[in-house]
Amino acid sequence: MASLVCSLCGATYPYVEHRQRCSKDGEPLHVQLDRGEEKKEIGGDSLLHRWQQFLPFGRISDDIDLGVGNTPLVKSRRLASRLGMADLYFKNEGLNPTGSFKDRGTVAGIQRALDLGFKAVGTVSSGNMAGSMAAFAARAGLDCFIMVSSRILPEKLGPVGIYHPYLMLVDGDYGDLYQESLRIGEELGIYFIVGDDPFRVEGQKTVALEICLEMNWQAPDFIFMPVSSGGNMSGVLKGLRELEERGMIARRPQVVGVQAEGSSPIAKAFLQGKESFERLQSTNTICGAITNPNPPSGNRVLRWLEGGRYGRVMTVTDDEALAAQRELAEGEGIWVQPDSAVTLAAVRKSLEQGTIDPSARVVCILTGNGLKDPSIFKARPVETRQVALEGLRDLVTSLSKE
Amino acid sequence: MASLVCSLCGATYPYVEHRQRCSKDGEPLHVQLDRGEEKKEIGGDSLLHRWQQFLPFGRISDDIDLGVGNTPLVKSRRLASRLGMADLYFKNEGLNPTGSFKDRGTVAGIQRALDLGFKAVGTVSSGNMAGSMAAFAARAGLDCFIMVSSRILPEKLGPVGIYHPYLMLVDGDYGDLYQESLRIGEELGIYFIVGDDPFRVEGQKTVALEICLEMNWQAPDFIFMPVSSGGNMSGVLKGLRELEERGMIARRPQVVGVQAEGSSPIAKAFLQGKESFERLQSTNTICGAITNPNPPSGNRVLRWLEGGRYGRVMTVTDDEALAAQRELAEGEGIWVQPDSAVTLAAVRKSLEQGTIDPSARVVCILTGNGLKDPSIFKARPVETRQVALEGLRDLVTSLSKE
Repeated sequence: MASLVCSLCGATYPYVEHRQRCSKDGEPLHVQLDRGEEKKEIGGDSLLHRWQQFLPFGRISDDIDLGVGNTPLVKSRRLASRLGMADLYFKNEGLNPTGSFKDRGTVAGIQRALDLGFKAVGTVSSGNMAGSMAAFAARAGLDCFIMVSSRILPEKLGPVGIYHPYLMLVDGDYGDLYQESLRIGEELGIYFIVGDDPFRVEGQKTVALEICLEMNWQAPDFIFMPVSSGGNMSGVLKGLRELEERGMIARRPQVVGVQAEGSSPIAKAFLQGKESFERLQSTNTICGAITNPNPPSGNRVLRWLEGGRYGRVMTVTDDEALAAQRELAEGEGIWVQPDSAVTLAAVRKSLEQGTIDPSARVVCILTGNGLKDPSIFKARPVETRQVALEGLRDLVTSLSKE
Repeated sequence: MASLVCSLCGATYPYVEHRQRCSKDGEPLHVQLDRGEEKKEIGGDSLLHRWQQFLPFGRISDDIDLGVGNTPLVKSRRLASRLGMADLYFKNEGLNPTGSFKDRGTVAGIQRALDLGFKAVGTVSSGNMAGSMAAFAARAGLDCFIMVSSRILPEKLGPVGIYHPYLMLVDGDYGDLYQESLRIGEELGIYFIVGDDPFRVEGQKTVALEICLEMNWQAPDFIFMPVSSGGNMSGVLKGLRELEERGMIARRPQVVGVQAEGSSPIAKAFLQGKESFERLQSTNTICGAITNPNPPSGNRVLRWLEGGRYGRVMTVTDDEALAAQRELAEGEGIWVQPDSAVTLAAVRKSLEQGTIDPSARVVCILTGNGLKDPSIFKARPVETRQVALEGLRDLVTSLSKE
């Protein structure tokens, strides 16, 4: 019913084989679905049920979901007007069960793990993916191995550890840890559902399907999204392609991947017209969720953009990201990680550069909930006013007149 | 089309009047709706549109919502089986836009504020309600005044301050602050949308409507929920009554309010068969979101329970709440505040006491996202394993055999 395909060399592998990358060139694989019967209705109690006709799963487990997807698509009010735009939307992925977009990929990966008979899953991550994996493994009753660098900030451990996975703080190079974990997984029968696993990508693509459904299949002109490893952006590009192939949307939106200037290997390659990126020796950004210096699906994203035909990759600075985070919270009531706010910063920059028109219909995918990153308040303390009860009335009176 | 009614003396006030409490006895008012035309379909883009036929709003603003409601109703897997139950569900209200149930009441309150022409809103709170008010006021473009005690923990300021309200740290007694804020609001035209405001209660009741809709109008036997000020529980009791009156459910579920043993004025009164509670002089619980020693809607809850006909109020200990929080995270993949986990602890206790049967269909309302309360990790550090890269394989091998 489906196969696993390399986007570089076109090699195909049997669907039943547990394989994440091409044995010839090491590039990530993706699922190619033989189109079956199409359902007219899109409905169902869980993400995988809802989008089953787009997904490679035969039977879908009833009880592995925690309410993934169907996140709000919020039409911008004041920010759109400030930017002179008519149709600006925010897809708030931070309202997924563990607070980030990762849950879409995780639930699809867990389904694959169950299909292949795995009893244990794992991942190498210190952020959104780790918490997501730990939660859904707990839900599915699978053992879960989370490998993080021993240099991790202590406050990042809570949102992972709460689900009680085997949480390992490993001393050593992060790239080496990644490779070693995959080797250990293969040997011991632990499925490491990495950021660009073919099935994780299947889950991630559902955000593109949802956006188009919510807009009554009048796809937007542009989708702005953060890009780090390239797994999520691969999913969105794949989902939009499949919608177009099925004639469900008339035209594919341009997908604009956004990186932080201090960690932008994919953007650099794109701007230079290259088909493969160069690994960075170091990164420098406060956007910790999008700092991958060696993005495993970076080349696939570059390939699937077809030199600009289906979108592009750009950068914004940390200051622009932080300003956009404030704007989203203060102007729209949406608190996201700076790593998500980069999308709004990129929309502003694109308007200034003339690469998008104010009349364009634009969706920003906000990938992570601000609640997950309280560290911003260390650098930017909350503005408060201290007052005795007796002085309250006068203070409020003077503020009311501002 | 509607009026404001006192649940104690039955006095009614005009709908157009800005009034929260009865001028005769000080008890909270609620909205009494003259039933209009019923819509067959329940649908719409926002919470207030979706439930308009149950709500007292004529015109509903299109752009004040941030994706409130439609939170996941997760069927329990392992915990149900551990408890010998067949039908245990968790309604995860922590996936509302600001991470708590408060958003339902806030969006309804903001609609009321706009209807009455207010340009500023406010609240006295240091927790979920403050963040919710600040976010939705930002969304609606209203000034927002948040009064908190100057003894507030600094880490609680971020999730409120991010939306940039006027955030005031006030020295003085909390009860006095509450009364003084209402007085200032009246004088200066600031609508203080308190926890049991009649319109907030209208918003809170939608969770009961949603639960019954999601269960295909086969209402559960029991709904367990935390209770503090009594505003949310008033809403749930009111919503269920309205569903029964309209013949949409055959029988009202029993609503079980849960308090922390160290702060349980309503439970004490209920157990003693009293119609009004006694204000506590002090409280002692780690469940900070449900510690109101003087719950403004406590008596209304007692009244609406009709001595046990429609439910009851019970207590659990902090240890039971913390254990239930772990169980929910580790067994089901859902991380909530201990203040929400009290519901699961109460289900267990009720099974032990024989007040519910294992065959009962039970819904626990989980009111707040665990991400909002990382302080639990101070007392209970995350379990990790430190290892050098070279030792990783051996460690994982030994853990795999556990």
